[in-house]
Amino acid sequence: MAIETIPLQLNLQQKRQAEAQSWRQSLTSRGILCLNLISSPGAGKTSLLQAMARHWGGSLRMGVLVGDIATDRDALRLAPLVPVRQLTTGGACHLELPLVQKGWEQLETQDLEILVIENVGNLVCPASHDLGEHLRVVVLSVTEGDDKPGKYPKAFRTSQVCVINKVDLLPYVPFSLVAVTADAHAVHGDLPLFATSATTGEGIALFCDFLVTQRRNLLHRDANVL
Amino acid sequence: MAIETIPLQLNLQQKRQAEAQSWRQSLTSRGILCLNLISSPGAGKTSLLQAMARHWGGSLRMGVLVGDIATDRDALRLAPLVPVRQLTTGGACHLELPLVQKGWEQLETQDLEILVIENVGNLVCPASHDLGEHLRVVVLSVTEGDDKPGKYPKAFRTSQVCVINKVDLLPYVPFSLVAVTADAHAVHGDLPLFATSATTGEGIALFCDFLVTQRRNLLHRDANVL
Repeated sequence: MAIETIPLQLNLQQKRQAEAQSWRQSLTSRGILCLNLISSPGAGKTSLLQAMARHWGGSLRMGVLVGDIATDRDALRLAPLVPVRQLTTGGACHLELPLVQKGWEQLETQDLEILVIENVGNLVCPASHDLGEHLRVVVLSVTEGDDKPGKYPKAFRTSQVCVINKVDLLPYVPFSLVAVTADAHAVHGDLPLFATSATTGEGIALFCDFLVTQRRNLLHRDANVL
Repeated sequence: MAIETIPLQLNLQQKRQAEAQSWRQSLTSRGILCLNLISSPGAGKTSLLQAMARHWGGSLRMGVLVGDIATDRDALRLAPLVPVRQLTTGGACHLELPLVQKGWEQLETQDLEILVIENVGNLVCPASHDLGEHLRVVVLSVTEGDDKPGKYPKAFRTSQVCVINKVDLLPYVPFSLVAVTADAHAVHGDLPLFATSATTGEGIALFCDFLVTQRRNLLHRDANVL
């Protein structure tokens, strides 16, 4: 009985992985770069997206699917700036692909260049779920402390980019950019780090330019494959 | 088949609840008030415990079981001040009672007045697990934003006390103590809130006095029951 459950679990995992991979490919073929933003509650994911939307203005089409356990507060903050749908998990600690796809179908426009999935605020559980993203972005705010990569390794190991947010608060908190970089690189050797402040705008342009380059590279690779 | 699984699940839940209740009673009978600290990563749980330990000095015997996914960093910070054991979940997003009890057996002294379980940094999952505590304490730092109680309702609904930490940073962040109180009370009507700063010491004495009173009331109630 126990032996039989192992292939069953593997099959389910493989099935989910295949579904995420298939969705990732369909987004690629439409020219959409998909990000999955993960962080602790209050690290500034929504403020970062507001700053990115303001930076791009009408020059790049970004859409957002925003996940929360309860309330539509984050969607209300983003709605004046970008097409957005709130995904409410009703208690679940992370987003899963079926809910993301449901939100995607309800988004008022699917003619996007960048789709951002803002995950539930949780530095642990979302790291175990592939939502079909091209880039997983872990956001860490300086007020959380520079010891977090080692303490929450999976979030940093499975992400392709790290944003160190709220750097405008650096003068007031014990946080070293050198120490956090060393701690992150001990977990994930070549993880690129961007220092940003959604409040002052510091670092936003650099991060946005990086994403535009990533999208260009993705489409170039895809064209080569085709 | 589906009908049969319902009582099975209920039995497991009831069994866990009974075990937590039994452990809570055994701590009560030993005169130990047990706290379960839950918060986002980096809200300042360990710094708060350091400040409490410094406040009490030798006048009150506090011990700590500190939960993390990886590393023994928090235990190393607390070890110069109080008896402490690190509980490492190896990936799990919350503490469960058997690991807590294992740590308890390894604590160098069990002759305590207050036992604090510092949970894994996660504002979601730990709210679903009774660790036999007398008081669940949800810690929210002002840098996370005053909209968190409504967005993470279970943590605030199931806690008996809320600590608003890092109030020394209030001049630098958009956070209203009035708004967070209203948001917390919309979820949990009579939740007591304490404003603290582990850095400046503000509010620490008040919170510590509250805990001493809670312990006295607990022992008084227990004596009445006996």
